[in-house]
Amino acid sequence: MQAGGRSARMVRMIDSHRALQHLDELRALTADDMGAQRVAWTPTWLKARDWFQTKIDGLRADWAPALEDHYDAAGNHWVTLPGESSRALVLGSHLDSVPNGGWLDGCLGVIAGFEALTAIAKQYNGRPPVTVKLVDWADEEGARFGRSLFGSSAFAGTHSIAADRVRTDRDGVTYEAALKSCGVDVEKIGDAASEQKELAAYFELHIEQGPILERLGKPLGVVQGTKGVERWAITFHGQEAHSGSTPMEARRDALAAAAKLALEIRPIARKHPQSVATMGSVKTFPGIVTAVVGRCECTLDMRDLDATVLASMLGDAREASERFAVEEGCTVEWAKIWSIEPIPFDPHLIALCDEAIVEVAGTSEHLPSGPLHDAAEVARVGIPTVMMFVQSLNGLSHNRAEDTKREHLEQAIEAFHGLAEKVIAWMAAS
Amino acid sequence: MQAGGRSARMVRMIDSHRALQHLDELRALTADDMGAQRVAWTPTWLKARDWFQTKIDGLRADWAPALEDHYDAAGNHWVTLPGESSRALVLGSHLDSVPNGGWLDGCLGVIAGFEALTAIAKQYNGRPPVTVKLVDWADEEGARFGRSLFGSSAFAGTHSIAADRVRTDRDGVTYEAALKSCGVDVEKIGDAASEQKELAAYFELHIEQGPILERLGKPLGVVQGTKGVERWAITFHGQEAHSGSTPMEARRDALAAAAKLALEIRPIARKHPQSVATMGSVKTFPGIVTAVVGRCECTLDMRDLDATVLASMLGDAREASERFAVEEGCTVEWAKIWSIEPIPFDPHLIALCDEAIVEVAGTSEHLPSGPLHDAAEVARVGIPTVMMFVQSLNGLSHNRAEDTKREHLEQAIEAFHGLAEKVIAWMAAS
Repeated sequence: MQAGGRSARMVRMIDSHRALQHLDELRALTADDMGAQRVAWTPTWLKARDWFQTKIDGLRADWAPALEDHYDAAGNHWVTLPGESSRALVLGSHLDSVPNGGWLDGCLGVIAGFEALTAIAKQYNGRPPVTVKLVDWADEEGARFGRSLFGSSAFAGTHSIAADRVRTDRDGVTYEAALKSCGVDVEKIGDAASEQKELAAYFELHIEQGPILERLGKPLGVVQGTKGVERWAITFHGQEAHSGSTPMEARRDALAAAAKLALEIRPIARKHPQSVATMGSVKTFPGIVTAVVGRCECTLDMRDLDATVLASMLGDAREASERFAVEEGCTVEWAKIWSIEPIPFDPHLIALCDEAIVEVAGTSEHLPSGPLHDAAEVARVGIPTVMMFVQSLNGLSHNRAEDTKREHLEQAIEAFHGLAEKVIAWMAAS
Repeated sequence: MQAGGRSARMVRMIDSHRALQHLDELRALTADDMGAQRVAWTPTWLKARDWFQTKIDGLRADWAPALEDHYDAAGNHWVTLPGESSRALVLGSHLDSVPNGGWLDGCLGVIAGFEALTAIAKQYNGRPPVTVKLVDWADEEGARFGRSLFGSSAFAGTHSIAADRVRTDRDGVTYEAALKSCGVDVEKIGDAASEQKELAAYFELHIEQGPILERLGKPLGVVQGTKGVERWAITFHGQEAHSGSTPMEARRDALAAAAKLALEIRPIARKHPQSVATMGSVKTFPGIVTAVVGRCECTLDMRDLDATVLASMLGDAREASERFAVEEGCTVEWAKIWSIEPIPFDPHLIALCDEAIVEVAGTSEHLPSGPLHDAAEVARVGIPTVMMFVQSLNGLSHNRAEDTKREHLEQAIEAFHGLAEKVIAWMAAS
């Protein structure tokens, strides 16, 4: 079994133990008692990036004198190990976190990518058959300004800086000023698209942030793509009325209509195996104990990997809301907050990722990603892309309780390196 | 038909047209484009009270030299027409309003009482067989500090000043300071209980603030009592989770449990003919579009005239909330906000009120009051009490759209005077 034999060698060549030491080191440097504090465009984030720079400098000094690194126009940090061919594969993720975040979300992928790059540099004496890049995307989380996937969308040309320029953080600092303090000129971030040149493949390791792999007892899974999202604000208008003097049959209760919808989106989602539908916010007006609710504002977030399924769910929810409005003597308005189409990943890379996972863990699983990731932006511009998920404990993330078993992290780092090797072999052969 | 003949004379003796002129005058003086602004403990309220003082002074000068008036220790304004007997009947209501309030809520009762007092003074040449009082209660609405029935509860000895002293308005002004600026010493408000002496009957005219009389096509109704109220804060605890990565079957959605309860309280209330149950406020946490609701706080307000029915509804709601919590993998907590027992009005006064209404309108109706009124505080201390309701258009109140047909207002003022005459006759005979 030649493939198995090669895999076994690869596993030995990557230092997953050192990767975990790096994660611990980064946590000690950039987290406090409340969790990770690497919010993009803040001093703690810059400290994490400076720390990472020392690792790159070390790799250059020890194993890869040709290693180049630079920040692009959107603040993405690109590390390039030039190969025999200028066609490049890219490993990427993000060092930034939400406030009081977990120790793995984002940085696991950067550290795993760094270890894979190190292993590749060692194996090929600093010059692999194809160029290998590692990217640390700027501001994936959007935690400070509410705009996620900042760096990768600038790279993909799907950024929206005209709309985003007016954003401010909770202290009133503008997006533009915060970026400038980190050396990024808001007028030029579109120039990051020049980094697309000669990229042949992109892949990213991330924690699942959900409970599926844990429930299946599997350490690793291959991601089929990111789900499409329909995000809407729904307002029911009824009639505010006195809670004491208004008989039950005379009420036009906007909350009752919203409550029916909150429950109805669940069977709508359950018609499809991977769909989710969430009412995350309900606001009642006047919202006092002694008044029937005259206006109820709620939000709906629906996701599926299949655009047809997503459209059908949206139609079902809309029809249900109109029916409930009529039943309760109310009216209903829908206003779009945001939407994105489903983004499927590359079938060949999915197959290679699956192989890499099976070689390390003996079993794999295909699952969609509900959360968005920088990988979705890369896939949108036509670069073959895939993601690997490692199990999350209790499905928790964006929280200091976020965790993954160390043995699963080690398997993830090994499988991720295995995938890199497979992609290098595939690119070199094609 | 002696009774009918007397009633016909009474109708002519009260000047319901002048009463409407007074209401219009008060509106011009104390309302703006948004509605009435006679919020207790504010300059506009004091302006209304000053205006009312000129009316009392006019009555004294014209028809009743023995008329006495004073403010008690809680800021209630008492006007007394001494009679042959010192046993007194009291007509009462309140001049204060909510912000942006209606033109009738509260002040209709004061003005109707004033016209009845004037008619009685004229009829008996300033000395009726029993003493007749008119009271303008201080701060019925509780609009500024959230404590309704202030003056009447001080009168009844059910006030809670130890708890209330820490209340502040939205500008941070304390209750104590606001009262002091209107000449009321917070330490002494309990002294208002001395006004209970020799009171033999109390009655109050008020707009219905609900749609029952309008739906029945009746201008006036007699109030059986004020409903008991159970007011609770209910919190469902589930698990906050990512809206994209958490499968439907893995959720512990606190909003789903609350939505079930919002719908279930309706059949619980509908089991009983006069019960109402309202969920007036729902708050979701974290309350963002991308998170399954981890905690949902809601309020419940249940009312009925029968204490046994009210207790049974509360038990049903509690049991349902616990069942829904289990179904949704949540827990539920109940915390009492406030409660009051049902307060039935006096059967003999109810009968007299019914007669007075039929004599003017040809038809009457018995109905409970969902909203609380100062009359409830008076009834609590054992003084025979009744209320008369006049139809509200569209059931609206606490709003500048609050209105009642002028012909119904005139009928109400006439019937209210008729009731006063019946009570004087009853007291004089007993």
